[in-house]
Amino acid sequence: MTYKDLSNEINKKESFLCVGLDSDINKIPKFLLNEKDPIFEFNKQIILATHSATVAYKINTAFYESRGIAGWQSLSSTVEFLRQNFPEILIIADAKRGDIGNTSEQYAKAFFEELNCDAITIAPYMGVDSVSPFLSFNDKWGILLALTSNAGSKDFQFDYIPDNEQYLYERVISKSKEWGTKENMMYVVGATQTEYLQRIRKIIPQHFLLVPGVGAQGGSLEEVAKYGMNSNCGLLVNMSRGIIYLANDENFAEAAKEKASEIGSKMSELLKTCR
Amino acid sequence: MTYKDLSNEINKKESFLCVGLDSDINKIPKFLLNEKDPIFEFNKQIILATHSATVAYKINTAFYESRGIAGWQSLSSTVEFLRQNFPEILIIADAKRGDIGNTSEQYAKAFFEELNCDAITIAPYMGVDSVSPFLSFNDKWGILLALTSNAGSKDFQFDYIPDNEQYLYERVISKSKEWGTKENMMYVVGATQTEYLQRIRKIIPQHFLLVPGVGAQGGSLEEVAKYGMNSNCGLLVNMSRGIIYLANDENFAEAAKEKASEIGSKMSELLKTCR
Repeated sequence: MTYKDLSNEINKKESFLCVGLDSDINKIPKFLLNEKDPIFEFNKQIILATHSATVAYKINTAFYESRGIAGWQSLSSTVEFLRQNFPEILIIADAKRGDIGNTSEQYAKAFFEELNCDAITIAPYMGVDSVSPFLSFNDKWGILLALTSNAGSKDFQFDYIPDNEQYLYERVISKSKEWGTKENMMYVVGATQTEYLQRIRKIIPQHFLLVPGVGAQGGSLEEVAKYGMNSNCGLLVNMSRGIIYLANDENFAEAAKEKASEIGSKMSELLKTCR
Repeated sequence: MTYKDLSNEINKKESFLCVGLDSDINKIPKFLLNEKDPIFEFNKQIILATHSATVAYKINTAFYESRGIAGWQSLSSTVEFLRQNFPEILIIADAKRGDIGNTSEQYAKAFFEELNCDAITIAPYMGVDSVSPFLSFNDKWGILLALTSNAGSKDFQFDYIPDNEQYLYERVISKSKEWGTKENMMYVVGATQTEYLQRIRKIIPQHFLLVPGVGAQGGSLEEVAKYGMNSNCGLLVNMSRGIIYLANDENFAEAAKEKASEIGSKMSELLKTCR
């Protein structure tokens, strides 16, 4: 999917919502456990309920890997279902991969060829040759961790580097933006870190930001839009637990649908400010 | 596996060799492709040929994930084979995982419970809550990236942080060593970075170091031992391509055996210097 395709989809749906499929076998409604593949069935119903207000689905690979081969099957079926029914929606593998060059090549193959996702999240610590292999595929995206939403983001991401007059997260963005373009790179910036969004937008005014942390983690959608939005929107705001686990019975998909619509309406209003 | 178990195994075998199972379907001998699970068959023969000189196997998960469900099956069968036949050998999932707390918990479950590995490599960028979930299992290990062997290690790991008078890789070690103990944490330090081993040993004299980069990447075993060894050895030196791909025909396992023995003999000599 290209930058333009994604921008068009945001304009068409008047939404920049990404729904996170952190689908946990211990948290989905019990009646689904009778299905052959309960997690896939859960995902399918969430997708069918939310797709009209959603421009991206983010699949958190950890929740699938923890179930071994059965989990990998659920992951694969989910990507296939999305690809066949909603080819206009971005599929993000939230996998936080990154290793030496020959190994990152294998991860890229896993998520872009074997699974046919559009994008993958990447950890920056190992530098250029751990990231570049993800950027050599047409119309695929690498999404680099910059400033994450969790408490541990304070451990290293705010280390100040005087030689560059930058915090580490800024240095990661400044340096890595030379490795790709706004057409094949995005950055993860947590919604709990909105006070730093203006600094980030000075370095990368045009890139898309994938923003987790609205909802369960306490971030504000309005603040994210205020400081992070650019003239193409440039945002994908993710919600996972705040949408997929609102009801623990037959109404779970309907509850997700209502919430996604509600968020979509808010986003529609916020989008008017960027035009 | 405990610190003491691992030290005992090193003493018994007079080796600190870790063999990396970066098993690539495009690089294994062609005659194995007739097997039901060629990668598992390759691994099994490599393990049977090298185990007497080997104290750890490191499974590079990327090479398995790139083959989807079939790859995950090969990975699972390999761990099971090792567990059943060589319970005294450390099994490392070289997976470079790390995410917010609830997600790292799922990764820990994937590699310590679903797959029953002993250890997993972890990326440090997201800080304490991304690492801690891996440290709460009895006799399991988190192996944190500190100073990696690749060219991209220069991008961020050597950023100097005057507030702490440390390079980033030193800061990662200093801070994270408080999150666990030498009984449940190791660090990755590339064999191409031996000039920094003395600095690292000042911060963590007792921890085990997992050292990739000898062989294909050009690091020196002697230098690693000279600057990195402690009184318990404290080293696991990994070789992957330099052992498993020495022959591309029926002799591949025999060639791996000879090379592992040769390295084991060198290690036996080097171990004498630490006593």
